[in-house]
Parts: sequence; C-alpha cells; structure tokens
Amino acid sequence: MTREQLIESIRLKQTFLCIGLDSDIDKIPKHLLEKDDPVFEFNKAIVDYTHDLAIAYKPNLAFYESRGAEGWKSLEKTIEYISDNYAGIFTIADAKRGDIGNTSGQYAKAFFENMSFSALTVAPYMGEDSVSPFLAYDNKWVILLALTSNKGASDFQYFKDNDKRLFEEVISVSGKWANHDHMMYVVGATKAEMLKDIRKLAPDHFLLVPGVGAQGGSLEEVVKYGMNKECGLIVNSSRGIIFASNQKNFADVARDKAREIQLEMAKHLIDKDVI
Amino acid sequence: MTREQLIESIRLKQTFLCIGLDSDIDKIPKHLLEKDDPVFEFNKAIVDYTHDLAIAYKPNLAFYESRGAEGWKSLEKTIEYISDNYAGIFTIADAKRGDIGNTSGQYAKAFFENMSFSALTVAPYMGEDSVSPFLAYDNKWVILLALTSNKGASDFQYFKDNDKRLFEEVISVSGKWANHDHMMYVVGATKAEMLKDIRKLAPDHFLLVPGVGAQGGSLEEVVKYGMNKECGLIVNSSRGIIFASNQKNFADVARDKAREIQLEMAKHLIDKDVI
Repeated sequence: MTREQLIESIRLKQTFLCIGLDSDIDKIPKHLLEKDDPVFEFNKAIVDYTHDLAIAYKPNLAFYESRGAEGWKSLEKTIEYISDNYAGIFTIADAKRGDIGNTSGQYAKAFFENMSFSALTVAPYMGEDSVSPFLAYDNKWVILLALTSNKGASDFQYFKDNDKRLFEEVISVSGKWANHDHMMYVVGATKAEMLKDIRKLAPDHFLLVPGVGAQGGSLEEVVKYGMNKECGLIVNSSRGIIFASNQKNFADVARDKAREIQLEMAKHLIDKDVI
Repeated sequence: MTREQLIESIRLKQTFLCIGLDSDIDKIPKHLLEKDDPVFEFNKAIVDYTHDLAIAYKPNLAFYESRGAEGWKSLEKTIEYISDNYAGIFTIADAKRGDIGNTSGQYAKAFFENMSFSALTVAPYMGEDSVSPFLAYDNKWVILLALTSNKGASDFQYFKDNDKRLFEEVISVSGKWANHDHMMYVVGATKAEMLKDIRKLAPDHFLLVPGVGAQGGSLEEVVKYGMNKECGLIVNSSRGIIFASNQKNFADVARDKAREIQLEMAKHLIDKDVI
C-alpha cells in the first residue's frame, strides 16, 4: 500500500485505528473452540465487525507461534481473508524481526511474499543491513522500533551520546536508509510527550503507536504531540477491543469499543484539520 | 541444560562447535526434494553425521518461517529428533525475539514448552521486561545480542554514553537480570579483538560466536581473546559445514568439515588447559 492510499483510507473512514489481533487461544470465547480453526474464526469475526472502523490490523506473531504450525496456519488464513475481502486494509506483522542480511531476506519472503502483509515491525539493534532487505519491496513498509511502550524501554532506548538518545539516533540514522514512503516508527503511547521530540526528527513519517488502552496511554495526548497535517498516526488497540467480551456476541461488543474510539478519532481529525 | 552439563559436554567431545541449521530449501541437495519433508531429512542427516563433533545445533528461524506452516513443522520435527536421539545436545533457536512482557511470554511458550529448545537468542532493545519471561524457565538460556557479526552492527551497537558503548551497556545492565547460569551473549567473530573488552565485563559467561567461516571471522582470534578456563565459547558455523556439498554424499562432506573444525578446537582446548 502506498502512503497516498493510506492517507486516503484515513480520510474516507475518519479513523486511524489499528486493531491488534493478539488472538490468544486461551482468551477467545469458549464457544469458538469447537471450530476447526478457532483463532481464525475469532479473527474473521473481529474483522467482519470492525473493518469500516479501522484502517489496519496487526497480528502479533507471538500469539500464533506459541501454537506452532497450527498457529502459523491461522495467521496465513487471517491475512488471506483480509486481503481477499477488504481491499485497502493495511496489515502489519508485529514480528520485531531483524537479522544479518541474507537471513532478514528470508523473513521478508515469509511476510511479504508468502503472506501479503503491508508492513513488518523490525528491531533496529543490528543496523542497516538487517533492515534493508525489507525495504527492497515496492509498496511495503518497515516499521522500526524507536521508543517502545513497555517499562524496559528505559533500559537502553534513552542511552545517550552527547545530547542524543538512542531512540533519536535510530530515527536519524535510519532516515538515511529510506524515506517516509517506506518507513514508519513505533512510538509507545505511554511516552506521548516524547512525540514532540520525535516529530522534530520525523515530521512527516507515520508513527505506529501502541499502548493506548490496556497499557495506559492516552489518545488525546498522542494526538496533541504526534498528529501532523496528514494525520501521521496509526494508533493500535488490542485487548481493549478484541477481548472486551468473551460471550457469543463478542464481535458486536468489539465493534462497540472500536466505534467509540473511531468517533473520538474522527473528532481529532476534524479538530486538527486533517479532514 | 545446566552450565555444568554444557561444560562437561565440551570436555568429553573436545569441541565447542555449534552447527547452524540455516537449512534454506533452495540450497539443500536436489535429491532430497523428492522426500515428504526435505528440510527435516536434510537436518536429520546433518545431525546424524556430526552429533559427536558438535555440542550444539542452531536453526535460524527465518529459514523455516519463509516456508510458512510447513517450515514450522520441519523445525518442530528437527528439535524433537535431536532431543529424542541425542541427549545432551544444546539446541538454540536463533530467533532474535523480544517484545513486551506478556508477548515475550508467548514466545517463551513457543520455544521452551511446545518445542524443547535449550536456548533462544533475544534482541535487547526493549529492555528487561522483554527478556525476563524467557528467564523464568529452569535450565533454559537467554542468549542476548551484544555485538553482532554484520556490517550494520556499527550503526547502533557502538553508540557511546561517556566511555561506555551500547553493547557494553547491554552486557552490564543485563548482568543484573540473570547470571551466567541463564544468560549468554552473542559476540560476532568478525570483531574478535572486542572479545577482550567483553571479557572484562563478562569473564565467566558463555559467548555464542557466529561469523566464523562464510562471514570471515577467525577461530584462532576468537580463542585468543575470548576463551576462559571453562572454554566459555560456543562457536557457530553454518553454511561452511551444511552446504559444503550439494551432492548425495553431502552429510559425509559436512562431517569432514565439522571434523576439521573439531580437531582445531580440541587443540585450542588443550593449549588453553581447558581439557
């Protein structure tokens, strides 16, 4: 998906919501466990009920890999289902991969060729040649970890060379590898005020912002410090939407939660003159 | 596997070789492609022919994920085969994972419960709570990326706070999360002289050293700067061994290559009074 298509999708749907498909088989409604592929059925229902309120879906790979080959099949089916039925949806493999060049190339094949993900989250620690194989694909995106939403973010991401912190160095240096047509950054909502500093380095980039909801981040703060004239934000919510209910009507309840967030997002998009 | 068992294995076999099972289906001998699971058959043959010359095997996940659910099955079968047939072999999932706590917990389940890997490589960028779920397992190991063997290592790993470089900070800080009974570090052979600095911070830790062979690192240099009184090294070679031949006798040729390295390693172990 191109940057223009993504912006168009945000404007049309009046939302910048990404729904995290962290579909833990131990947390999905029990009645689905009778199905052949309960996790796929769960994802399908969530997507069917929310696709007009979200611009993106983001399965976190860990919840699929923990079920081995079977989990991998649920993931493949989910991505195929989305791309077959809902053209224009941005799909993010939250995989946080990154390895030496020829190995990253194999990961790129997994997520961009065998599956048709639009984007992949990548860990920056190993530097340029660990990231560049993912950038070789037209209209595919790398979403590089910059400042994450968890407590441990402070262990290394604030490590400081003169006045520059590591997460800032990651943004500056990686800005030379690709521009805002191919690269985004992960910036946790739990550090919303940091978005101000990040916008100095990456005024036009899209930022993928996890941590709103269960992890305690505030949408209002994220918008205040992070929104630019084309929105520039993809805000993720996972558990707060997909596990809002574990009853038979779970997809309906998920829709209500997503709708609530979408309405708040529409208001922000209007307030900030994006739409 | 405990540290004592690992050391005992090195002494008995007179080797500290790890064989990287980067079993790219496009590079394995063509005659195997007729089999039901060519990659598993390849791995099985390599392990059968080299298990007395190596202490560890390290599949890199990318080469399995690039084949989707099928690749995941080859991996599961490989690890099951090793643990059923060759007790005392150390198995490393070279996955470079790392995510927020509840998500890393799912990865831990994938590699330590569903599969019986002894160790997992982990990327440090997200800090303590991204690593600690892997440390919750008795006799399992985290192998944290410190200084990697690729060119891009210089992009961020040498980032400097006062006199401390990021890879040194990673070793110092993570040393508080677990001791040398549960944690190892990745240090690329292409930076062998750096092992001297790393040994100041981690004198007793095992170091997993990739980059000998195809990537240009020298075993002699690695031993010179990195070996301690209990060996303290697991040196990996992948392509140089497993793809030494793509003919029907590939496993025999792989054995010859592994044997060559094992003999050199035995000499170093004797020279350094480890055995």
